[in-house]
Amino acid sequence: MKAEIIAVGSELLLGQISNTNAKFISSQLAELGIDVYYHTVVGDNSNRLLETIKLAEQRADLLIFTGGLGPTKDDLTKETIATHLNKRLIMDDHALVDIEEFFKRMNRVMTENNKKQALILEGCNVLPNKHGMAPGMLLSTDKHSYILLPGPPKEMEPMFQFEAKPMLSKLINEETIILSHVIRFYGIGEAELETKVQDLLDNQTNPTLAPLASDGEVTLRLTAKSETELDAREKIDTLQAEIFKRVGEYVYGYNDDSLASKLQEILVENQLTISAAESMTAGLFQSELASIPGMGAVLVGGMITYTEEIKVEQLGVKQQIITESGVVSSKCAEAMAIRIKEKFGTNIGVGITGAAGPDAHGGQPAGTVWIGLVLNQMAPFSYQLNLTGMRNTNRLRAVKFAIHYLIRLLREHGFTTI
Amino acid sequence: MKAEIIAVGSELLLGQISNTNAKFISSQLAELGIDVYYHTVVGDNSNRLLETIKLAEQRADLLIFTGGLGPTKDDLTKETIATHLNKRLIMDDHALVDIEEFFKRMNRVMTENNKKQALILEGCNVLPNKHGMAPGMLLSTDKHSYILLPGPPKEMEPMFQFEAKPMLSKLINEETIILSHVIRFYGIGEAELETKVQDLLDNQTNPTLAPLASDGEVTLRLTAKSETELDAREKIDTLQAEIFKRVGEYVYGYNDDSLASKLQEILVENQLTISAAESMTAGLFQSELASIPGMGAVLVGGMITYTEEIKVEQLGVKQQIITESGVVSSKCAEAMAIRIKEKFGTNIGVGITGAAGPDAHGGQPAGTVWIGLVLNQMAPFSYQLNLTGMRNTNRLRAVKFAIHYLIRLLREHGFTTI
Repeated sequence: MKAEIIAVGSELLLGQISNTNAKFISSQLAELGIDVYYHTVVGDNSNRLLETIKLAEQRADLLIFTGGLGPTKDDLTKETIATHLNKRLIMDDHALVDIEEFFKRMNRVMTENNKKQALILEGCNVLPNKHGMAPGMLLSTDKHSYILLPGPPKEMEPMFQFEAKPMLSKLINEETIILSHVIRFYGIGEAELETKVQDLLDNQTNPTLAPLASDGEVTLRLTAKSETELDAREKIDTLQAEIFKRVGEYVYGYNDDSLASKLQEILVENQLTISAAESMTAGLFQSELASIPGMGAVLVGGMITYTEEIKVEQLGVKQQIITESGVVSSKCAEAMAIRIKEKFGTNIGVGITGAAGPDAHGGQPAGTVWIGLVLNQMAPFSYQLNLTGMRNTNRLRAVKFAIHYLIRLLREHGFTTI
Repeated sequence: MKAEIIAVGSELLLGQISNTNAKFISSQLAELGIDVYYHTVVGDNSNRLLETIKLAEQRADLLIFTGGLGPTKDDLTKETIATHLNKRLIMDDHALVDIEEFFKRMNRVMTENNKKQALILEGCNVLPNKHGMAPGMLLSTDKHSYILLPGPPKEMEPMFQFEAKPMLSKLINEETIILSHVIRFYGIGEAELETKVQDLLDNQTNPTLAPLASDGEVTLRLTAKSETELDAREKIDTLQAEIFKRVGEYVYGYNDDSLASKLQEILVENQLTISAAESMTAGLFQSELASIPGMGAVLVGGMITYTEEIKVEQLGVKQQIITESGVVSSKCAEAMAIRIKEKFGTNIGVGITGAAGPDAHGGQPAGTVWIGLVLNQMAPFSYQLNLTGMRNTNRLRAVKFAIHYLIRLLREHGFTTI
């Protein structure tokens, strides 16, 4: 099966937003083994959209549209498809009720043009929108399938993953099992990782092995094809064992794991509570942990100590430490970790202090970070980073490194095997 | 002049990376007044690339390619264009020297296939690559112009901006000044905003008016054309005044402003310090403020009070308030704001408490949020939100609403006019 992804929206052609939807859908289709030969972006113009549809019908079996399902006159994806396929648009009562309830929950007045969003293509399967108003649609004709999805990624991504993908999976009814498995690394660069598995990258055909770096993390995707799931799984396990021999120490998780979700898993399993005192990251470490549901079981809270006074007066770091070693120092990071652990009564204390940039801070150049960790009754540990990114990249990297070092520490002390 | 942007690379179709190049180039072309009707992504396949070129030549005057200029066999953009236009590829000595020097700087050995990168289209203008190896090209025929750019954004962006754009500017030899101005709104939905300016959207041609919604924010982009900058500016000012009459209360800034940068501007201008006590947002509010350089002048710090115990014992919220009203309540949010302001000695205190989701919390359904604000000696204010997103969308929206309400409060009390 060949697919083509068509994004509709003049804002894309004006360069106001990036077509991240095509990336997301493509990676999902790759997992299903569906080939994508083209992405197209077209504006809110029914003639050009129609031409795009006709062309895509010549090149692909499956046409996936994002955008143009909203309430305004500019939104014309379903209208254009309806005209082209000679289908009526009919009001979907479920979708209308959903939209009315959405407005009630938001305490907003529903305007008449919002009703337009509940119109669906006659004969389609409705894909409910759990995170917005416009429902999606899947329509199949003799020759083609058409999937219509809303533009905002927050609505589109869960709709594709949980509504459209299972339907597609049935549609293609593949005999071949395609199994994908992602190994996640932190603390090793892409080039270094590739060097260590170069022969595998060059010679592996089943499973294939694909490295990808983003946001300071590196992943390896293993994709196996086989007639049975068991055999595909075995192929992946064998290759994974070989990869572990070489770079296993940098592995923190698999597939949809994130550093934060992995840390949560370990903390919950061992009933270890955690608190943090943050300076340069200003709450980003704790916010990252709290992004995972259920973190309340282990994350107690902490302090953001942006100024020296707050570090001393509220957190209780000794003035002498700061005077002698500076706010960006091993001593200060460790003292922050120890004090927050004691104050908040947790098993683990984390202290993060540094110069995020663009300017130097505490006598240290931009990018210098100290992470202090203390676990139960052990002596504190500290780790220095010398980051080279811009301010907010440095802040995010500092958070990821803090989680990475904490997971390592917990592994070294037998709280997890990974 | 009409342009089409063609990205070449199978990694895009596999969903490994996003086509951010198209966004960047589109926004640059918009500034030049060049219309973009399509973006296309095509894989490393010369037949499909050729078809894409032929189609684009029917639809546009200017074809801009990104990617496929590298050293490997997969890289075939210039080869395909050369064959199609019946042009030779010739070795560019300058580019070859640049490539050799690049390898010296990187302390790497130059392999033979890297020389391929110095091949250019006969008769083209070379666009030097200051951040990588493959040079770019601009080639003009009777009917079309072709710009070939490397794929990596850090090479492509400066090359487009500093090499290709000035050439394009001469090519179109535009006498017309094009001025763009973005007005930023918060606290109003896209549909509601459009309803209030519908007549302007329908009837305005110069300036044009384009709405865009993302991440809970709505913007209006005003684009004026004129022979003089002064006149273009006046056209924008006149339309902006009309927009302000209708929806001015929701405006928080312009162009590259963010809610956080605007808040910082107001706080610094008025020398107002701020602290926050955060529950469901767990530091995200303060981290968002700290994402702006120089926030240290006004952000003192705060607490993350994830559990009830910490709210009471560390922050000092009265147990009675929580027992009577619950942790997710107006009373609790206000008490958090008051207590952190007192404890940290700031002008402004912010308290955020809520149920981020997916589960209910503190007896309130997921999405219920209370924001407490206290400013100097005034009585506290509180605001309820009923959000409908997923956990982390709700957390981010809560942060944005907190900043939005704070900016409003500061405006109402004369600290800013916006």
